[in-house]
Amino acid sequence: MKYFNTNDIQAMSKIFRLNLINSITGYKSANLIVTKTNSKIYNVAIFSSVTHLGSDPPLIGFITRPGPVPRNTYDNIIENGYFTINHITKNQIESAHHSSAKYPKNISEFDKTTLSPEFKENFVIPFVKNSPIQIACSFSNEYHITENNTKLIIGRIENLFLNENLLNKDGWVELNKGEIVTINGLDGYALPKLIKRFSYARPKIKK
Amino acid sequence: MKYFNTNDIQAMSKIFRLNLINSITGYKSANLIVTKTNSKIYNVAIFSSVTHLGSDPPLIGFITRPGPVPRNTYDNIIENGYFTINHITKNQIESAHHSSAKYPKNISEFDKTTLSPEFKENFVIPFVKNSPIQIACSFSNEYHITENNTKLIIGRIENLFLNENLLNKDGWVELNKGEIVTINGLDGYALPKLIKRFSYARPKIKK
Repeated sequence: MKYFNTNDIQAMSKIFRLNLINSITGYKSANLIVTKTNSKIYNVAIFSSVTHLGSDPPLIGFITRPGPVPRNTYDNIIENGYFTINHITKNQIESAHHSSAKYPKNISEFDKTTLSPEFKENFVIPFVKNSPIQIACSFSNEYHITENNTKLIIGRIENLFLNENLLNKDGWVELNKGEIVTINGLDGYALPKLIKRFSYARPKIKK
Repeated sequence: MKYFNTNDIQAMSKIFRLNLINSITGYKSANLIVTKTNSKIYNVAIFSSVTHLGSDPPLIGFITRPGPVPRNTYDNIIENGYFTINHITKNQIESAHHSSAKYPKNISEFDKTTLSPEFKENFVIPFVKNSPIQIACSFSNEYHITENNTKLIIGRIENLFLNENLLNKDGWVELNKGEIVTINGLDGYALPKLIKRFSYARPKIKK
């Protein structure tokens, strides 16, 4: 096996280290977060750090970095208090990836990609059209991670729309029925296929 | 599309809500975290919340809940300061899932599954044998998430082992070459196939 210690990692070129360290946590969620500026420009940005935090209350978290693109998202959420999370399908990956380009805050990525906004009743922020899972969130809290000046943003799920054929009777959502993708590193997009679903694991009485 | 508002979510049965809310953030990383008790028992627990936090310094984060199994992991990390993160392959999913069973702290999941420890020089915690990406971490910090009494654990990457055929020249690690899985919800395991890797996204000059 290839081995890197802490000094090797420190000595890497920036790009090599970015690619490596962004890859080795494993597959990541692929989401478009839509926010609104005070001038009603809708920003769209791709995130790969949206994580389940808890089910009751229903909470999600994601990480924002001190770079320009996530700052638009961050500023808008702090200013307006709401955002939507939209899953990315196989057919949307090119436009979804392009949303990571550093456009100024007054440009909407809806105007620079094939992605379209979908407005729904009772929510101030649009969703991404044809996204099979669309989540409306309110801002709940932020935690400043002092180690590297990032922030964990906590959102509360307010409304949830999902394609009916993904939903099982017990609440489990079969993502592969929606051709929902996952992210490998900074720029790799992969399509998972379900292998198996297990039941709740209980200790074995005998070895 | 199926629609749930905040009241609908609140009114769901516990199991339905757990399955639903655990599914809708998208695909999750699949990792086994190995820790050591003070009596040198090695605990193995599956986590689906390991997230990239930053590359320089190389940091990861994951969420621990107030339940029994993650508490073993949490207690051991706080007591000993070190842990390993090990990726799960297609062939390991049955044992990996079984590591979520609530065994007492003095029982090693290495004795209750087909998973084997792999000891390496210079690190106090073993890795999971045949895992294609093995990461040695030191505990860096914890953030208490007051909304639901969970904790974000921050780890610093100290040593990294990976199968050489996964590593590209620019540092990107192609996870599908290692048959590394991803998790859908609480108990679904899926195998991704790479669709495409994009280059760095830059703004379009003209629409």
